[in-house]
Amino acid sequence: MKKPWAGRFSDRTSASVEAFTESVSYDKRLWRHDIRGSIAHARMLGRQGIIPKKDSAAIVKGLDRIAADIDSGRFKFREDLEDVHMNIEAALQVALDLRLYLREETTEIISLIKDLQKAFVGLAGEHIDTLMPGYTHLQRAQPVLLSHHLLAYAEMLQRDRERFADCLIRIDVMPLGSCALSGTSLPTDRTYTAKLLGFSRISGNSIDSVSDRDFAAEFLSVSAILMMHLSRLSEELVLWSTEEFRFAEISDRFTTGSSIMPQKKNPDVAELTRGKTGRVYGNLMALLTLLKGLPLAYNRDMQEDKLPVFDTVDTVKACLSVLSEMLPGICFDKARMRDTAGEGYSTATDLAEYLVRKGVPFREAHEITGKIVLFCIGRKIPIESLALTDLKSFSDLISDDIYSVIDPSNSVKTRSSFGGTSPSEVRRQIRHFKKLLR
Amino acid sequence: MKKPWAGRFSDRTSASVEAFTESVSYDKRLWRHDIRGSIAHARMLGRQGIIPKKDSAAIVKGLDRIAADIDSGRFKFREDLEDVHMNIEAALQVALDLRLYLREETTEIISLIKDLQKAFVGLAGEHIDTLMPGYTHLQRAQPVLLSHHLLAYAEMLQRDRERFADCLIRIDVMPLGSCALSGTSLPTDRTYTAKLLGFSRISGNSIDSVSDRDFAAEFLSVSAILMMHLSRLSEELVLWSTEEFRFAEISDRFTTGSSIMPQKKNPDVAELTRGKTGRVYGNLMALLTLLKGLPLAYNRDMQEDKLPVFDTVDTVKACLSVLSEMLPGICFDKARMRDTAGEGYSTATDLAEYLVRKGVPFREAHEITGKIVLFCIGRKIPIESLALTDLKSFSDLISDDIYSVIDPSNSVKTRSSFGGTSPSEVRRQIRHFKKLLR
Amino acid sequence: MKKPWAGRFSDRTSASVEAFTESVSYDKRLWRHDIRGSIAHARMLGRQGIIPKKDSAAIVKGLDRIAADIDSGRFKFREDLEDVHMNIEAALQVALDLRLYLREETTEIISLIKDLQKAFVGLAGEHIDTLMPGYTHLQRAQPVLLSHHLLAYAEMLQRDRERFADCLIRIDVMPLGSCALSGTSLPTDRTYTAKLLGFSRISGNSIDSVSDRDFAAEFLSVSAILMMHLSRLSEELVLWSTEEFRFAEISDRFTTGSSIMPQKKNPDVAELTRGKTGRVYGNLMALLTLLKGLPLAYNRDMQEDKLPVFDTVDTVKACLSVLSEMLPGICFDKARMRDTAGEGYSTATDLAEYLVRKGVPFREAHEITGKIVLFCIGRKIPIESLALTDLKSFSDLISDDIYSVIDPSNSVKTRSSFGGTSPSEVRRQIRHFKKLLR
Amino acid sequence: MKKPWAGRFSDRTSASVEAFTESVSYDKRLWRHDIRGSIAHARMLGRQGIIPKKDSAAIVKGLDRIAADIDSGRFKFREDLEDVHMNIEAALQVALDLRLYLREETTEIISLIKDLQKAFVGLAGEHIDTLMPGYTHLQRAQPVLLSHHLLAYAEMLQRDRERFADCLIRIDVMPLGSCALSGTSLPTDRTYTAKLLGFSRISGNSIDSVSDRDFAAEFLSVSAILMMHLSRLSEELVLWSTEEFRFAEISDRFTTGSSIMPQKKNPDVAELTRGKTGRVYGNLMALLTLLKGLPLAYNRDMQEDKLPVFDTVDTVKACLSVLSEMLPGICFDKARMRDTAGEGYSTATDLAEYLVRKGVPFREAHEITGKIVLFCIGRKIPIESLALTDLKSFSDLISDDIYSVIDPSNSVKTRSSFGGTSPSEVRRQIRHFKKLLR
Repeated sequence: MKKPWAGRFSDRTSASVEAFTESVSYDKRLWRHDIRGSIAHARMLGRQGIIPKKDSAAIVKGLDRIAADIDSGRFKFREDLEDVHMNIEAALQVALDLRLYLREETTEIISLIKDLQKAFVGLAGEHIDTLMPGYTHLQRAQPVLLSHHLLAYAEMLQRDRERFADCLIRIDVMPLGSCALSGTSLPTDRTYTAKLLGFSRISGNSIDSVSDRDFAAEFLSVSAILMMHLSRLSEELVLWSTEEFRFAEISDRFTTGSSIMPQKKNPDVAELTRGKTGRVYGNLMALLTLLKGLPLAYNRDMQEDKLPVFDTVDTVKACLSVLSEMLPGICFDKARMRDTAGEGYSTATDLAEYLVRKGVPFREAHEITGKIVLFCIGRKIPIESLALTDLKSFSDLISDDIYSVIDPSNSVKTRSSFGGTSPSEVRRQIRHFKKLLR
Repeated sequence: MKKPWAGRFSDRTSASVEAFTESVSYDKRLWRHDIRGSIAHARMLGRQGIIPKKDSAAIVKGLDRIAADIDSGRFKFREDLEDVHMNIEAALQVALDLRLYLREETTEIISLIKDLQKAFVGLAGEHIDTLMPGYTHLQRAQPVLLSHHLLAYAEMLQRDRERFADCLIRIDVMPLGSCALSGTSLPTDRTYTAKLLGFSRISGNSIDSVSDRDFAAEFLSVSAILMMHLSRLSEELVLWSTEEFRFAEISDRFTTGSSIMPQKKNPDVAELTRGKTGRVYGNLMALLTLLKGLPLAYNRDMQEDKLPVFDTVDTVKACLSVLSEMLPGICFDKARMRDTAGEGYSTATDLAEYLVRKGVPFREAHEITGKIVLFCIGRKIPIESLALTDLKSFSDLISDDIYSVIDPSNSVKTRSSFGGTSPSEVRRQIRHFKKLLR
Repeated sequence: MKKPWAGRFSDRTSASVEAFTESVSYDKRLWRHDIRGSIAHARMLGRQGIIPKKDSAAIVKGLDRIAADIDSGRFKFREDLEDVHMNIEAALQVALDLRLYLREETTEIISLIKDLQKAFVGLAGEHIDTLMPGYTHLQRAQPVLLSHHLLAYAEMLQRDRERFADCLIRIDVMPLGSCALSGTSLPTDRTYTAKLLGFSRISGNSIDSVSDRDFAAEFLSVSAILMMHLSRLSEELVLWSTEEFRFAEISDRFTTGSSIMPQKKNPDVAELTRGKTGRVYGNLMALLTLLKGLPLAYNRDMQEDKLPVFDTVDTVKACLSVLSEMLPGICFDKARMRDTAGEGYSTATDLAEYLVRKGVPFREAHEITGKIVLFCIGRKIPIESLALTDLKSFSDLISDDIYSVIDPSNSVKTRSSFGGTSPSEVRRQIRHFKKLLR
Repeated sequence: MKKPWAGRFSDRTSASVEAFTESVSYDKRLWRHDIRGSIAHARMLGRQGIIPKKDSAAIVKGLDRIAADIDSGRFKFREDLEDVHMNIEAALQVALDLRLYLREETTEIISLIKDLQKAFVGLAGEHIDTLMPGYTHLQRAQPVLLSHHLLAYAEMLQRDRERFADCLIRIDVMPLGSCALSGTSLPTDRTYTAKLLGFSRISGNSIDSVSDRDFAAEFLSVSAILMMHLSRLSEELVLWSTEEFRFAEISDRFTTGSSIMPQKKNPDVAELTRGKTGRVYGNLMALLTLLKGLPLAYNRDMQEDKLPVFDTVDTVKACLSVLSEMLPGICFDKARMRDTAGEGYSTATDLAEYLVRKGVPFREAHEITGKIVLFCIGRKIPIESLALTDLKSFSDLISDDIYSVIDPSNSVKTRSSFGGTSPSEVRRQIRHFKKLLR
């Protein structure tokens, strides 16, 4: 087909260039948004008298028919309608399409995050009293409640939701009407078009409108932080599924086996989610690199903005969905978790705090406790196995009530500061999230 | 010095490990925030009766004295105060310090962005009528106003300000009181500490508090997008300073020469800003990589969060400051810009639109214009040099008024759609920004 | 279909997990390498008597038939052959396929780089005497030959070729025979399989074989550096195509127009190549992130290694091909380049060196020249327009021969140090590359 | 001080620009290389008669004195020597310095990698017969030897060494003599200067010499891959140090405690190494971004190449050193490793292969074994606890010899294919590395 701009050229485009520069192979997923934008534009043109009302109506009808045809797979390209597209700067229209698309997908992602939060809050509700070791440096640190640990992810996801919502505000700006880059001499009504397309704001500077891809870069960085959270969750699921931890068993429906090793049951979903994190980081880096040092306004480099965005949307949605589906079916080994919660001298801090309450300066209390721990490690026994006389040899202030203090269940109950791991605090957090997620 | 945790260990730390794990060499820039956090903590402990009021007051006084000593360079480390720090989890306190630090620096950065916006709006005010070529693909596209082009940067920076402000909300959360990771059994009042430190919110889950570095990752990604904008500005300044463009001359005070080539005057500030963009992208990638796949809660990896943050703060502030200082002194060659605005057939679109107004379908109008352009290129003349008879040979509809239509000044005036490049629209934009920047 | 590992499971895999974990949608491009690997493996098994010779032959024949069927589009999946695949660890076989694939593609890329080098050397040969301004800081620095400038790219590409060749050595290692991760108890002959597949080496440690993706990471980083070079070339082509530079005109076959602006002719190929650089950087970052912190040996995360590799192979090959095709048709405006080569006081260094040869210390010579330049800028004239008396007012040592010294053609001729821009040196470089590229 | 290029300027540089553009604060670590380069240059100039021999000797003597002064901390800047530097293009000289620096550091890094390989080979020698579970998906897969697992790292490091060695060849090219960008008219002898500085090659194109930073980008990407390996090692050390794995105990000298929790012993060195991986990835991304789209030849952006390089050199060296020091002192819990090697049905593959040897098709053998595993999991017993009659109920072909087959020690012994985990193969690998590391 003859190019609309063939007039100025004396030779045809090379076939290799056609292939190198095409984007329809991936742009086509924007067709719905493209038609929607064109319809709004045509309606505005008709309303403003820029084109006859009759023509406007005919165009809208034609586009509706095309949409129906594409939907049903019957679509044939209609050459006579091409003039509609000739009136809009293709590049800008694609920016519009991308905003419409991302507005829709970001809203969907926010909802999927909410679903995943609900899954965490639901699980937390089932495990209010399940003890587990809390870790720092992946070393057992202090006993915590599994529910408390799970709610930490609900918190992370809450921040992710906020970030996507903030991003959405900046996606929700209509660029249409900036034309090639300088605006137009026609009496358009951009506010009306925006209203038709449901945009909250219209862009304020036509040059900026044409060159701006901030909304995509922000979407990718917000997605990267979300994926970072999911990678941490995945790491924990992988660890908890090991024979060594044995905290959690992911259901058969969400694991796979090995074609060589008959005993294997692998946490593939978690591993793939962790791996896909790299993909989203890479997409962010791709777009940031692309935009670095580009002069205003539009440059063809910017055509390359779509693939990283599409791939990120697909990846993020797939990960959120499959995790939401998988989480409720995870079977936690409560007995194993409770047992390990008390091992590894994880209530040593409680012992030290006990000494502080008896008047020992913290520094000294810490050192006394350290020596008790070292003594027990040497004998391969837990602190509670020590006789009171043995304990007293480290400090006279230790008395019989110590055994209750270093019991992990009791330890957890005392951590009732705001945000702490006590059951009452966990219940408060659950109530808080239930309200947020309504 | 003996480690506070030496009790549990039977051997001393290797010197190489001391060197490998130390962070004070760069953490020390947080001393002011660290002392401020410790004072608030001590005051709260006193108020809640967790430590005697008298002790609390003594600690606060001692910390104040230390602050004064550090300020005046007289500081000597006071061993007797160490117990204060023993009561707080070092890692968490550093998270607090980093939040206090970033809250301050983000506020400062927002203010520096505002300054740079003012510089753009100021320059735009001086160049409301300065014509220049607007570019797409770095090819002259249509005439625009320099003021309009400059205001595109004010728009970008406005989004940057919004993003930093959104990030600030998530920085402004107090983590203190989460202790090692499970909260505390002491009757602390986290809300009071937060009030003393001016925090708007306190964190809701102690495990999350200890493992969360979102605020830093978000700060870095917001900074990366800002630097992307500055890199685009820098690219344009470099281009405009070339002999080939000759649009702008940066003052001697903001350029450097060459020790070999006596004629050189180099736009180093712009080049370095463009180069430093890589640094900030790298810092973002460093932190995202670091956090990927970390199990909860604290891991020592996270000590490596500070250098990318510090380096980014320094880089972003330096770039914003020097550009704000440099911009007002840039000397634009108005004559050169006006001349080139009309060259390169940049009003060919106006000619095509003229034909459309005379009833020619857009597609045909575009093609006729393309042929006129090609004809002129062949003769190396601008369109306005063609006699009316020559023009009529392409289309009978062209009449004498065409010469006024393709005049760049007139072209610009017609682009009065919202956000367009007409002088009236530019004045509206300037008023808009003056209100925003008050 | 029943999973080969269904025995150990009591529930079926969730459909969402099937979709989430599948890779055949993109893996399928490895089918040729997969079949080739399987054939070699089957032949080795037969030769070693691990399976009957007859069976081995039947399998090979079957696989050949499958290959023919896939080739001709007639392929139907043959269930009865599945056992062949059951005997090999899928993951490892995919690592083999990826190595076979990358070995082929890297060889192809090396050849495409060579083609592009030839294009540069060819162009250089046509422009041995074409003067142009050499730039530093994008400011005209000294006159150089266009041929010399073009050969700089031949040098960069030479290093790229070397890097790909080095990478190829590390790709060219056969991992097959490591089985799940511990090797096998069967009397396999890995050297024979390697010989059949044309591998130079076999891997030395089965655990490493299963977990190693270095070859892919190295391939991506080598590709990133290549794309960096192409982005620099693209930037220059974009600049040279501007109205402002007007050094080069890319042929109509390799540019596109605008559907709005009839006069536009855009260097899309260069812009897209520059933009695609981000994509390859992103792919590198994706794989490095993915591999960070993975315990040995295989983890499912590693399935995500393929998309960044495939996308990079496609991108790199497309960019190299289209540039090789485009370069020879670029039309350089020799007159314009020659004229600008002498403008901008680009031979000021020659003037300073002239003074040095007359005995003036370099520092003083530099300053005198700087003052002459400043004087000329004030009057908007080139140095050669100054009368000898004017020149002498800056330094008595200047005499009539100065006009020849500051002529750009003469300037270039004097730069005959090894690697310099003199025509003789450029000819030497061309000879050097012609030999390398034979 | 007056700038050497002040002649052409009418105003002084702004103080903020001085601060923004300075690099001496970090460049100074190159002083030794800078002086060495200057001495070689001066000697060549003297030898070629470009400056008098006497002057050349005086300069060399002066520079030697400066070097001695800097070394001893007595250095005072000598203004009279500045002319020496005036004759060289600062930017290029810095490129030379960076190459000299990286040549030295790369050599050092290669040697440190060798040390770390030796540490692995040494440890492997001590653990030739230590059984451990081999993992895929972090699930126990098959028993392997600890020595075999450790040697996987020796393999990775071997590839790292090769990559650094390849990179070194491209670092080892002398750029000096390209002057500003076009070469020089003076009768220099670049080969002689190269010989004095110990360079193997000299650069072939002066424009490329000035704009080339490939050697730094390659150094960073090679370092990123090395750090990726170290991050995997670190992850494993962190895992093995958990209470859950309990495979390894890092000595007190290489761990730290907690100021709150008296029982903690944290694998900080491994964690920090894993975290620092992000830093090196970030440095790579910083340089790649910086170089993207830069026109030839030198741009001031390139000044920003040094910090990522310096930081990477420091990080890589520190990580390699501390790991080499730490590894030999790691105490492996052989009993625990041996016990777990046999748990988790890790020899199920051996059982399946046993059935294959008895004539069962692999697919069926795999399924039978899967069912046995599922049966045992249900009863929470290992396979070896099943009575022969129970086993026979799954397959009649199982007989008494099965118990020996599924013993992990026996399993390992059979894996004697090249690169497999059998003790004989491990011994071969150790011999291979001992030869390589001599």
